[in-house]
Order: sequence, then structure tokens, then C-alpha cells
Amino acid sequence: MANPVLVEVLRGAIVESAHRGAVAVFDGDGKPVWEIGDTTKPVFPRSAVKAIQALPLIESGAADAYGFGNRELALACASHSGEPAHVELARSMLAKAGLDQSALECGTHWPSSHDAEIALARGGGSPNALHNNCSGKHAGFLCTCVHSGIDPRGYVKAGHGMQEMVRDAMQAVTGTVHGADERAIDGCSIPTYAVPLRSFALGFARMATATGFGPERAKAAKRLLSACMAEPFFVAGTGRADVALMEAAPGRIFAKGGAEGVHCAAIPELGLGIAVKCDDGASRAGDAMVAAVLAKLLHADEALSARLLGLANEAIESRIGAKVGSLRPTAAIG
Amino acid sequence: MANPVLVEVLRGAIVESAHRGAVAVFDGDGKPVWEIGDTTKPVFPRSAVKAIQALPLIESGAADAYGFGNRELALACASHSGEPAHVELARSMLAKAGLDQSALECGTHWPSSHDAEIALARGGGSPNALHNNCSGKHAGFLCTCVHSGIDPRGYVKAGHGMQEMVRDAMQAVTGTVHGADERAIDGCSIPTYAVPLRSFALGFARMATATGFGPERAKAAKRLLSACMAEPFFVAGTGRADVALMEAAPGRIFAKGGAEGVHCAAIPELGLGIAVKCDDGASRAGDAMVAAVLAKLLHADEALSARLLGLANEAIESRIGAKVGSLRPTAAIG
Repeated sequence: MANPVLVEVLRGAIVESAHRGAVAVFDGDGKPVWEIGDTTKPVFPRSAVKAIQALPLIESGAADAYGFGNRELALACASHSGEPAHVELARSMLAKAGLDQSALECGTHWPSSHDAEIALARGGGSPNALHNNCSGKHAGFLCTCVHSGIDPRGYVKAGHGMQEMVRDAMQAVTGTVHGADERAIDGCSIPTYAVPLRSFALGFARMATATGFGPERAKAAKRLLSACMAEPFFVAGTGRADVALMEAAPGRIFAKGGAEGVHCAAIPELGLGIAVKCDDGASRAGDAMVAAVLAKLLHADEALSARLLGLANEAIESRIGAKVGSLRPTAAIG
Repeated sequence: MANPVLVEVLRGAIVESAHRGAVAVFDGDGKPVWEIGDTTKPVFPRSAVKAIQALPLIESGAADAYGFGNRELALACASHSGEPAHVELARSMLAKAGLDQSALECGTHWPSSHDAEIALARGGGSPNALHNNCSGKHAGFLCTCVHSGIDPRGYVKAGHGMQEMVRDAMQAVTGTVHGADERAIDGCSIPTYAVPLRSFALGFARMATATGFGPERAKAAKRLLSACMAEPFFVAGTGRADVALMEAAPGRIFAKGGAEGVHCAAIPELGLGIAVKCDDGASRAGDAMVAAVLAKLLHADEALSARLLGLANEAIESRIGAKVGSLRPTAAIG
């Protein structure tokens, strides 16, 4: 059966396009609090789980050895926009481990920030792997390898010690086996595993509550979510959805999107983890879905809830900047 | 009821995302030849109907008065990529009517061609309205106004003589009333009307066969489709789907995409018009859907059909250029 329409795209008063999807909200004990659509269907979480993938950076002792603070930890959990501050911080993280951009195996692309892209081109520059939106995560992987005495070469490949650590963390936190049959390759060349959407909601509830974690993991999870909430710009970039969501309630909302319409989030004060997947892979809809879910769960704070709903109803403008439409969450999610 | 899934997005061997949609194939007499999903639902055709919107440019006598050939007519039907050849041609069309870019009311955006965008920035330039993907259509509107003695100011607005001519052509060709209740504003500021998807399939079957057209309109429709098929680069740009589709069978396939996953096409030798809409608005899926439909309708030419199916199964690459997935039309459309 098809998942319900969760977000409509209006042009004038008419629905032009519609996005279906699924939503899972769990508490740290594994209790489903709210589910829409099929939350048992396997989903590639892509970049939405970078905070879980960053646990080894802290648990290995590398983050402390290299003196990483909130900004570096946020960048290790980031899909950044390639703005100068992101690029410089990724460079400095690598330098702490005696490495440079040539060690990165994530590939190169122009900054996803249009302003940063134009500025780079105007200055006669070209992008390198530091501009890749995943360079902070990869810098974290490389620092973990060097600090742990593991040869970093091939660190992106399934079976390499680094990816085994990442898979172990993902399996433990989500409580779900990540087998070879579930594996494919992410845009930045590391493995990504398709497991039920609800696993990620449970995983982020545990990241926020530390339910069932030992003391080291509990501390590491708290440090990572706190770092992202303290430095949202370093998790994403200027004008990005995750920055708007986390700045809407500083320290109270963690949010991280991934490619193909996935979004994970956590509300520490409620002990809840959230995972959404837009069936068709549209980020605009994944962003609106998670904003609508957060607005609903945080309804007791009316001003915050209204602000989050505003983010879920993003305007669509013509090329002269006139408002000609908007996104609109449906009753199924509102 | 939900429309069927027509295109799946694979990562490795697993379906990561899925696109639903509707397909209408009609002949010039108004007979449905093939329909999938709900083809009676109103759809904004956006840029997919620019060839119909360009009829007044020829019928008013402006195209002949200004000496427009295939390239100019193709550009008047285009959503171009803002490459230098597109920009220069739009400029020269305006100059024929004694105008320059300041007359354009479509708004400005950076070239949609990434290479053109970077080259413009490297040269210290900034975009103007000529880089807008719709500048050729708007140049055609302005030439029509000037030649017809109509004040061009405000030519984008509903009720202006130019948009009345466009609406008359759309209504006559699609056989469907375009009323104020169906109207919204397109990205380039002109009106767009949501009418049943099947109307556009019928419209393009008529554009290809001239069924029911008077001799002047028959000639104008043939000239426009022929111009686009002769000069596909000027309808789109380097690496674009419509260029690949039209170059797959020179002179035998007309194809034009629009925003939000709409695609129209015609196969003159079969006398058929085609319209597809991806429910969620994804261009990647609209492109794949129309390629799959063309492959099916042209199955008698096995080599061509295989080439079109190849276009429908576009590869997805990681940032290092490794193939990590692909689009795949489903059995419902294959």
C-alpha cells in the first residue's frame, strides 16, 4: 500500500505536486510514539546518521587527543555547504593528524553553497576534496585511524577497520543488523546500509537518552548532539534547513538531513528520536516533513511550534522574487 | 487512488526511492492510445508547452518579418541552459525588434549549465535576464508584440494582449478551457493553467498532425516542431535530456520538459502526442518516464528503442565517478 501524502506543493491555490512518505518517532526504550506509513521498509539513511557514524572519533580517544571542540565535532557530523569556514576547519582537523586533503577519499565537488561556489570561481579557484560536503566526516575518520594506529588508506571501503567501527556503532545504536545484503555505496564512497526506517528513530532516541549505553558511549553521544546543537552552521551552512531547525530552539532540537529525502532528529527534553523518509527522495519534502513532526511534538511551546510550522510551509518564488506558491504539510502529518 | 510507481531509483540492488506518475498518449483525433494513472487530473504544464505558446510568434507574422530561422524558433520554444550561444541568440532576437534585455520581464538567474555558470563567474560576470532559461520564449513574446503594434510593457501579465494570444492558442490546441480558476504564475512570471494531463497529449498530437487546424496554424505548428527537432541544442543545452531524446532519432522525436516533472513529446510518423507528469515533481523521473514511453511506442525500431531505454536507465554516480545506482522504469511503463 502506498504511504500517505505528507507534503503538498501549491502553485497559486492548486496542488501542483505531492510527496508521500513515512515517519517514525520512538522513545529510548524502543516504544513507538508516533508512526505514519510503512516504517518497517528498509531505507538508506545516507548522511542523516553522521552523528552516529562519528561515535568512534570520540570513543577512540582521537577527538580528545587532537583537542576537538564543538565546531570540529559538529563538522564531523556535517553535510556542510563548502563555505570558507567549513573548508578551513576540515583542513585544520586533518593537519592535527599530520594529514592534508590528499588523504581524503570522498571525491571532489563544487561547494553546495551557491555564493561560495561563485566566490571560488571568481577568485580563479577550483574545488578540492575539502569542499566535498562530507569532508568533515572524512576528516574525522582519518583522525580516528591515525590516532588508533590504523593505516588510513582505503578507509572508505567496507571491511576496512574504520568502516567496521562505523558499522559496529550503527548496529549497536539502532539495534539492527547491517549485513552485506543491505549494503550499497554512498555518494562519498563509504558503505550505506538499508535498514527499517524505525531503526533510525530508535537510534536517535538512544543518542538523546543514552538508554542502554555504557558510560563512554553515553558521554560520546551527548557530546556529539550537544556540539551540533551548539554550532548548527558547522553541521550545514548558510540558509540550510538544519540550521533553521536547530536555531529555532537552541539546545532543544537536533536535526540532520541526508540525501534522497531522509531526515533524522532528536528532542532530548522529550527523550524522542525521529526519522522520516520522503518516498521519492525529495529533500524539500523531507525537510518539510521533519519540521512538521517537530512542530507537532513540541506543540506545548506554541511560539516554537508556530516557528517550526513556518519552516514546513516554505514559500516558492518566481524569478523576480514574487511568492507564487508554497509547500504545505497535509492533515496526515499536521 | 495513487498513481502507479513508474520509475524506481536503485542504489546497489536496493530500491532507494520511487516516483509515481501518469502518462497520456493520444492521437490527433482525440483517441487515447495509452494511458497510465489518472490523466484527467489538472496539471500545470509549465515549460513543456512552450512550442504551443510560440504559435503567435509565427501566426502574427513576426517570425518572418524578423527573418527567424530554425535556431530562433527553437530558442523561442526552449528552456535553455544559459550557454553563450543561447544568450547571444536571445540578444540578437531582441535586437531585431529594436529591443534589449531591459525589456525582458522574466527575471534573472545564473545559467543552469554549471560550466556556463562557472565560466561567467571566472570572467567576473554576473547573469542578466538573457541567461534566464526562458529568455528565448520571452524574446519571442516581445518580437510578437512589437511586430503587432502592441505595447510590450507588462507582456507577462494575464490580460495583456500577448498572454491573451498565448491562452487562445493553448485553448484551441488542447481543446480545453483555460479559466482564471485554473491560473497560477510560472517561474518566469507568465500565467500557467492547470488542465487535465490528457489535454497536453492531445495538443501535441495535433501539433504533429495538424488535425483540425487551419492552413496557417498547420504550417506554424509544423515549422516549430521541425525547428526544435533540427536544433535540439537551442531547445535545451549541453548534456540535457531533451537534446539526447531528439538526437536519438533526428526529425522523428519532439520532446520538451517542464518544471515539476512534466514532459511533453510527439512522434510525427505515428501521429501521436505524449504527456507525462511525475506526481512529486522530480525532473529526473519525468525525463525517464518520457524516454520509456518513447521506447515503447517506437519498439518497431529496435536499435532506437534500446537507445531510448538506455536514456531511461540513467546511471547514478558517486563523487569519484563510480556507478553506484541507476534509475529504472517499472513494468507498469516498460
